[in-house]
Amino acid sequence: MTSFLSTGQIIRCKAAVAWEAGKPLVIEEVDVLPPQKMEVRIKILCTSLCHTDVYFWEAKGQTPLFPRIFGHEAGGIVESVGEGVTELQPGDRVLPVFTGECGECRHCKSEESNMCELLRINTDRGVMLSDGKTRFYVDGKPIYHFLGTSTFSEFTVVHVGCAAKINPRAPLDKVCVLSCGISTGLGAALNVAKPRQGSTVAVFGLGAVGLAAAEGARISGASRIIGVDMNPNRFNEAKSFGVTEFVNPKDHDKPVQQVIADMTDGGVDRSIECSGNIDAMISAFECVHDGWGVGVLVGVPNKDDAFRTHPMNFLNERTLKGTFFGNYKPRSDLPSVVEMYMNKELELEKFITHQVPLADINKAFEYMLHGEGLRCIIHMPA
Amino acid sequence: MTSFLSTGQIIRCKAAVAWEAGKPLVIEEVDVLPPQKMEVRIKILCTSLCHTDVYFWEAKGQTPLFPRIFGHEAGGIVESVGEGVTELQPGDRVLPVFTGECGECRHCKSEESNMCELLRINTDRGVMLSDGKTRFYVDGKPIYHFLGTSTFSEFTVVHVGCAAKINPRAPLDKVCVLSCGISTGLGAALNVAKPRQGSTVAVFGLGAVGLAAAEGARISGASRIIGVDMNPNRFNEAKSFGVTEFVNPKDHDKPVQQVIADMTDGGVDRSIECSGNIDAMISAFECVHDGWGVGVLVGVPNKDDAFRTHPMNFLNERTLKGTFFGNYKPRSDLPSVVEMYMNKELELEKFITHQVPLADINKAFEYMLHGEGLRCIIHMPA
Ligand SMILES: NC(=O)c1ccc[n+]([C@@H]2O[C@H](COP(=O)([O-])OP(=O)(O)OC[C@H]3O[C@@H](n4cnc5c(N)ncnc54)[C@H](O)[C@@H]3O)[C@@H](O)[C@H]2O)c1
Ligand SMILES: NC(=O)c1ccc[n+]([C@@H]2O[C@H](COP(=O)([O-])OP(=O)(O)OC[C@H]3O[C@@H](n4cnc5c(N)ncnc54)[C@H](O)[C@@H]3O)[C@@H](O)[C@H]2O)c1
Ligand SMILES: [Zn+2]
Ligand SMILES: [Zn+2]
Ligand SMILES: [Zn+2]
Ligand SMILES: [Zn+2]
Repeated sequence: MTSFLSTGQIIRCKAAVAWEAGKPLVIEEVDVLPPQKMEVRIKILCTSLCHTDVYFWEAKGQTPLFPRIFGHEAGGIVESVGEGVTELQPGDRVLPVFTGECGECRHCKSEESNMCELLRINTDRGVMLSDGKTRFYVDGKPIYHFLGTSTFSEFTVVHVGCAAKINPRAPLDKVCVLSCGISTGLGAALNVAKPRQGSTVAVFGLGAVGLAAAEGARISGASRIIGVDMNPNRFNEAKSFGVTEFVNPKDHDKPVQQVIADMTDGGVDRSIECSGNIDAMISAFECVHDGWGVGVLVGVPNKDDAFRTHPMNFLNERTLKGTFFGNYKPRSDLPSVVEMYMNKELELEKFITHQVPLADINKAFEYMLHGEGLRCIIHMPA
Repeated sequence: MTSFLSTGQIIRCKAAVAWEAGKPLVIEEVDVLPPQKMEVRIKILCTSLCHTDVYFWEAKGQTPLFPRIFGHEAGGIVESVGEGVTELQPGDRVLPVFTGECGECRHCKSEESNMCELLRINTDRGVMLSDGKTRFYVDGKPIYHFLGTSTFSEFTVVHVGCAAKINPRAPLDKVCVLSCGISTGLGAALNVAKPRQGSTVAVFGLGAVGLAAAEGARISGASRIIGVDMNPNRFNEAKSFGVTEFVNPKDHDKPVQQVIADMTDGGVDRSIECSGNIDAMISAFECVHDGWGVGVLVGVPNKDDAFRTHPMNFLNERTLKGTFFGNYKPRSDLPSVVEMYMNKELELEKFITHQVPLADINKAFEYMLHGEGLRCIIHMPA
């Protein structure tokens, strides 16, 4: 491996390359170009695997873009910075994030939005913004980026707006999971649903995102957290995330929104949908109490899905909101989420169910494909 | 007419009775029974006509309930009170309201809801809550109530929870319009959409409710208020309500949400739907800006309407809420709306385009059926 400080130099290092849709990743020697204007090159220490990686690797729903380096939940250390970068310097500890914060656009300037116009998630782009080119090569062959992060590599290059500088004492093999799903669910509860002390919350879908939402509801002081999933295996795990009751829609003849209304004297105060299933989205909205109920959508739907409900459900004073990355602005807000972990207000260990070295990254894919556990941390070679 | 103070006595007075669906009202001598437990009898001084009266009088969409005394926007003076009434006494100036506030239920106790469980609007009930009977008779024949208010009568009986005590100096021939539509639109803006200073607001449907919403947006300091209506006659009137731009969906090939997005660099900050048309509801949601936009539904849809949109419109951080009576709690909040008028922060005169004596009440129906003007005040005989 090339020396650690190598500004302006190409770094040759190991990365897991996806050469074809659905085929096992291959550990390759990759050339990582130096960071260009407003970019930083990051030495990744650990990364975890999220469904979005698997989804685009399977490439069933989208135009395939290969060869590609996946990965977007990670922690690392800034190795070098490109022209114009003043916010970060070599040695800073950062979380790369799949959606950025330029700090200049209407969204970044709005208190309410985190959907940066410049650096908003783009799943189709496989190159860097500044010059439309990649920074990865294997034997001179260009390899595409993924989500502007491509963390399945010992070194990666990201836009400075996509790297959140965090407490240097934070253990990266824990807080790396805050780069995506966990913050998404947590923020959906803390920033968007905002359940009051003593309230009732329903969480649809008990994957990592849903369990993080349950964790957020628990932190907010919700007294009842009703977990909804079609897969009963999820229920046991969910107990340690504060979920107090379980509903499997398959166990009931009535629609699940009716089951929940019956359990809660008319509906829950808040609901958070984390499955991506359109029926769950509709149920999550319709199960909130009239007068004050708020439903929050997190799960990513299919292209052709339609959200459908009778407008009276709104007129009876229900609210429906969607959120992206838990409404966290990545650079402004992630550092404080890391602090929540450092202050023991937030437990991350329970999300981490597996660990593998980079060489075994395909095992992480296996765990996820079989629905085993929540997050698998992939450690880079020391 | 019976003497003014007549606790425990039947009062014989004039009222406009609807004997049959769609047939002109007939001014009759009506016997009004004394108020029972938790009821008050009110001497109505003036009342105005709202679409909901016309809608149930036409009885095209519902099971007809006749003979009936319509009317629900009014101002009056408490004549006598029934057993258990401590909050009101004879001589108090009140606005009867079609939806009540019992003060005891979960909704009344919640800061967020005004949908009282006990006294929530009920369009099907033609009798009083306490004993399931009417308080109105013509020649011994019972006449049904409407919305618990029946204000097209010199005297009426309402539940104490449906009478808001207001400033005794407020002119009832102006503030009576605050009993329904005007407060609904105003509150939709001030309490629910809450546009910030300098923001852009779209209002769909420029009837009395929509113009009150525009008035609320103006009071909130919105810098651009875009009025949307299919009827271009509404546009001239709307200018005095702060509407700065107009869009007639019929003038465009593109969907109106697209027209508005193009006018506003991606969408308005807030939209308020006051037409009751399902397409307008969908457009009102889809025309708000991603990241922070909030759509508010006010208009009452048809039974079979379905609200339909792609869930990504929510996930891109848009919010949709519905409101009922502008989220005002009738007894707690209407007095302060009356004060807004008294302090000249709110103009009501511009909503009042016609005046007729009770004897000519059918003219008020004509004006509304022809879409002439906004509110017609009906004055009781002196
Ligand atoms: N908005 C964002 O920023 C963001 C970020 C990350 C993930 N996500 C989305 O969040 C969702 C959840 O992610 P995850 O990683 O936890 O996924 P996951 O697959 O681990 O969990 C989803 C769970 O939903 C359950 N489910 C499926 N259909 C259901 C139904 N009809 N009712 C109830 N439960 C149902 C599944 O059994 C599963 O347990 C996905 O749609 C993902 O794309 C969104
Ligand atoms: N939620 C409540 O508490 C409450 C109270 C009172 C009235 N309302 C409802 O508010 C709505 C408005 O009441 P109003 O008295 O002002 O009615 P109105 O009939 O005077 O005004 C409605 C306006 O909407 C316009 N319109 C119709 N279709 C449209 C479309 N597709 N796009 C844009 N504009 C369109 C009409 O031309 C008309 O000008 C009604 O649905 C009424 O039932 C609700
Ligand atoms: Zn930005
Ligand atoms: Zn992810
Ligand atoms: Zn109540
Ligand atoms: Zn009305």
